[in-house]
Formats: sequence, C-alpha cells, structure tokens
Amino acid sequence: MPLAEFGLIDRYFRGIGPALDSTVLGVGDDCAVLRLPADQLLLVTTDTLVENIHFLAGSDPESLGHKSLAVNLSDLAAMGAAPKWATLALTLPDVNEPWLAAFARGFSALAERYRVQLVGGDITQGPLSICVQALGTAAAERILYRSSAGLDERIYVTGTIGDAGLALKYLKDSEQHCPKTLRDRLDRPEPRIEASRSIGGLASACIDISDGFAADLGHLLKASNVGATVDWNLIPLSPHVRRYVDQSNDFSLPLCAGDDYELCFTVPAQREEELIRQVQSLPFPCQRVGKIDRRPGLRFENLAPGLDLLLKGYEHFS
Amino acid sequence: MPLAEFGLIDRYFRGIGPALDSTVLGVGDDCAVLRLPADQLLLVTTDTLVENIHFLAGSDPESLGHKSLAVNLSDLAAMGAAPKWATLALTLPDVNEPWLAAFARGFSALAERYRVQLVGGDITQGPLSICVQALGTAAAERILYRSSAGLDERIYVTGTIGDAGLALKYLKDSEQHCPKTLRDRLDRPEPRIEASRSIGGLASACIDISDGFAADLGHLLKASNVGATVDWNLIPLSPHVRRYVDQSNDFSLPLCAGDDYELCFTVPAQREEELIRQVQSLPFPCQRVGKIDRRPGLRFENLAPGLDLLLKGYEHFS
Repeated sequence: MPLAEFGLIDRYFRGIGPALDSTVLGVGDDCAVLRLPADQLLLVTTDTLVENIHFLAGSDPESLGHKSLAVNLSDLAAMGAAPKWATLALTLPDVNEPWLAAFARGFSALAERYRVQLVGGDITQGPLSICVQALGTAAAERILYRSSAGLDERIYVTGTIGDAGLALKYLKDSEQHCPKTLRDRLDRPEPRIEASRSIGGLASACIDISDGFAADLGHLLKASNVGATVDWNLIPLSPHVRRYVDQSNDFSLPLCAGDDYELCFTVPAQREEELIRQVQSLPFPCQRVGKIDRRPGLRFENLAPGLDLLLKGYEHFS
Repeated sequence: MPLAEFGLIDRYFRGIGPALDSTVLGVGDDCAVLRLPADQLLLVTTDTLVENIHFLAGSDPESLGHKSLAVNLSDLAAMGAAPKWATLALTLPDVNEPWLAAFARGFSALAERYRVQLVGGDITQGPLSICVQALGTAAAERILYRSSAGLDERIYVTGTIGDAGLALKYLKDSEQHCPKTLRDRLDRPEPRIEASRSIGGLASACIDISDGFAADLGHLLKASNVGATVDWNLIPLSPHVRRYVDQSNDFSLPLCAGDDYELCFTVPAQREEELIRQVQSLPFPCQRVGKIDRRPGLRFENLAPGLDLLLKGYEHFS
C-alpha cells in the first residue's frame, strides 16, 4: 500500500540514532533545532549517492543506508569533528517498504554506532538518489584542515587502500569472483571516526580518500602549497590488492581508485612518536607512506618510471 | 567542454552570498566550519526539487536556482530563524554551462538578498535534482514551533494563497494564458523572512504553507493538539485567484494547492494589537483568518457545506 510522506517518515525514519541532549527538536517541524556545546565550532558536509553513478541498480538497500551516512561521517572524520546530527533527503521511484526498512536498518546501525541522530529530511518521488548532510562539532584547535600541511612533515594513511576499487573491478567483470571482505569495503565503508579522534591535536592536515589516494593527497598538497614524495613500498595494501598488483602490475588501481574512505594525514616529525602511541590501540594500521617537501606535486619512489603521469583520481564529468 | 567537478564548483558556486564573519571556512575542504553566535540555537532544514515532480523539464534555470533556496529559507522563516548558511547538492544529467550560470545567478541573487552564504555541496551526474540544506540561528525564546498554538489564539496568514496553485493549473492547460505575476508566484516564491522577523516574540506557533493552507494549518493544529475555525470570507486571495474562484466555484484550489510559501501563524489575543503594529511596515498584508478552538480538526465558516471533507493537501506518494 502506498504511504504518504508523513507516514513513511514516521514509520522508518523517526527515532534513528540516539536522542541527544543537544537536540532541542529533531524530526517533526519545519526545521530541527540544535544546541552546540559551548566553545565548539559547527562542521557541515553533504554528499549524494545517485543510482547508476555511485551504485548499481539493484544494490542492497541496507548497504546503501550504511554507505550514504558513512561517506558523510568520513568527511567529518577528515576534519577532526565529532559527528552529532544528520539529515536525509531521499528520492525514490516508488514506495517499496521492504527496501525502505532495509535502508533504514543500514542507516540506523551506523548512526547508533557513532551516536549520530537523524534530525530531519524529506522523501520525494523521482529517480533513486540519496542526499545526506552530516553535522559535527569540534574545538577550533582540533580541526584538521587540508591546507595546513608543513614542510618535512610525515604523511600517514589509515587502513589499506585500493580494496573498494578492486571490488568494483571484480563486480564489473562477470568472470571474476569478488570475495565478501573486499565487497564490504566498497559497500560498507567504515568512517575513520576513531582514527580522527586519536590524531586530533597531533596531525597537522588531513583529508579522506574518496577520489583516490593520489588525487586526494594531491588536493591536500595543493591546498597546503607544498609537494610530497611517497614510497610505493610503504603503501598499505590488503592481501587481495597485493596479489592483484603482483599479478597485473596495475599499480594505479590502489593509488587512483576512489571510495576507500581511509584518512590521509600529516604529522610534524617531533609529534610522530606521540602519534604512534595514540594510534596503537586502533583496530587497523596507520602507515607512514612519505614526506612533505617543497617541490609542488606528488612523486613516487620505487614505482615504475612514468607511472606518475598516469595517476589521476576519479572526477565527475571528467 | 565538459568540466571536472572542482572546476564547476570553482566557476559557479564559490563566492555565492556574502562572506560572513561567522564562517571560519566555506567551500574548499571536506566540511564547512561555522561559528554560531553565543546563546543562539542552530536550525537546520533540507528540501529537494526533482525534475518532473517539483518542476517541469525545461524549467527556467534561474528560477530553479531561486526556488531551490527559497523553499529552504521559507522553512527557516517558519521557525523564526535568521538564515545564515546553505549547502547545495546538485545532480545534473550533463554539463550545460549556460544552465549552470543561470542557476547560480538565481541562487546567488536570493542568497545576497537574505545574506545567506553558500558554504558547501557537491555536484554529481544523474537525473536533474537539487537538494539544498539551509542553516539559520535564533535565540531560544524567538523560535516558532508548530506545536505551541494555544486555545482562543488568532490565526493569521501572510500575503495571498492559491496563486502558485492557479499558476500550475494554467501552465498545465495549454489553452490558458498564465499571467507573469501569477507565474512568478510559482517559480520565484518569496521566503517570508521579514514577516518572520516581525512576528518573532509575538506569534505563538507558525508553519509555512508548502503543502497547502488546509494541510499545513492541519499539521499545526495536530502538533498543538487543538482545532480551528477559519472564515472563508477572510482568506486572502489575489485578484487572479478571486476571479478564478468566482467563476469556477473551486474553493478548494486556494485552500489546498501547495507551493505558496506564505506563513500561517497564531498569536494570543492580548498580543494581537502589538502584532498588527509590527506587521504594518511589511510590503504584503497579514490577514487574520480564524481562531484556535478546542475541538480537533479544521472547520470553515461561510463555505459550501461538505467541502471540508474534500480538503486535502498535496502529499508525495499519496
């Protein structure tokens, strides 16, 4: 039975995430009303997932619910912000209640885990598209801009890169089997909130890897007006990607494929020891991969010569 | 020439709206960083316009730029908030630079007028859809909830209602000419920010008329757990709509058609005089149309009997 918008919101999207003390009013009026902690700044981001562009038609709705929130929380993590609230603008071709229930389940599980309250949004009819906005807070001195990397600082990467890209490659090739662990990296990326918390106050600059490692580090370097040298041998790869690269010699996949949502950050040499202590308790590695230098651009050591030129992140309309 | 996303954002969407002192960082990093005035709460809303649902294919892009921001500012106005910032998630089938330039012009002109800074967003490829999020601030005591209308309070409406609905009716009927003033009411609604400012601290409850007068007043009544009696003879109609109703006897158009973005608010009797003084300087009327009473539901005086039952606002998927 088709439901009116208000019924759908009530049934599936009211009560997602914890009821935060700082939420004066969530879903149910023309706006949400929110209270910021004293001395904290507000951080805002928005990201859209469109069918057939960001995900294939028929994708698992629970994973879409997870991913649509995860990519936004990843932006908050990249800036050192604690996630607080989200809004959701959902465009659906029709009312499919099992789809909605599964989507809400995926969204909700991640929202609970990181204590994000869904405080508003709308549901409209149209081609499937999911637009999420996330709001977080941070003390001014803990915010991680991409523009503040300094000379001789060390460059770190969380987790492993290239997994989502390899999963997508396997999924597009019907002759390839895509292992579930790899597929989960594409469908259910984990925003690096804990890592962001650990490096806050120590890291100097940070970005999340959504367009691809080379492209995103490139954005950070450009914004900071510096360059970098990265050692290919230090790039953290999962066993799947290591095997793929060994067999194919396709170095560019881990360096250029997007959707990993790991963090890439810089740290001054004199804070490196403290940083290593801080990140030790994380359930994933933080790997030093290179160093900031003066010469603009991004260079790789221990990589086949000429490959630098081929490195290019994914960009819409490019 | 197709442009990459970063180029498009730089070319069309950087520098929209004034550079506010309270904006620590706007477009250009993973999140915008914003500072709230001390002792103010944050109000957040989001609304999406989808092609062929909210607007016809081939609609004037400058008007779409205006309207996509206006409908969100209207939500802030309905809550008594001062608009501050917006984010824009734009989904486009392809890169059409004249379209983008016109869209940005419409968005920008309204943003300048109400001093709203565009601080973030994304551009993705897909079926045309525009998702805007607006952020505003208000002192707690000036926020207008829809749930706080009290018994015997007076119900007011700004401007005139039914104009957007009549415009849409004329546009869908190729034999009818739609006068420009009427069409502008549909394509370029004016968020009632000044009215919201004037009634703040005096009005008790408020909602904006997006779904239709009867539906939206109905939401307010339900949220406030009261009913109301409205006098049809007091409903403010433009000459166009007055003539249409006189000729067609279609009372339901002004009462049920959406997209007017006027405000409907309540005021206690003892504050009515002050309210009338406050709204006198507005460039549009504020008309008393009825009174809150105890019996749940919305009743009309001086309207053909039985018509109440036909009144129903527009709802997606209904």
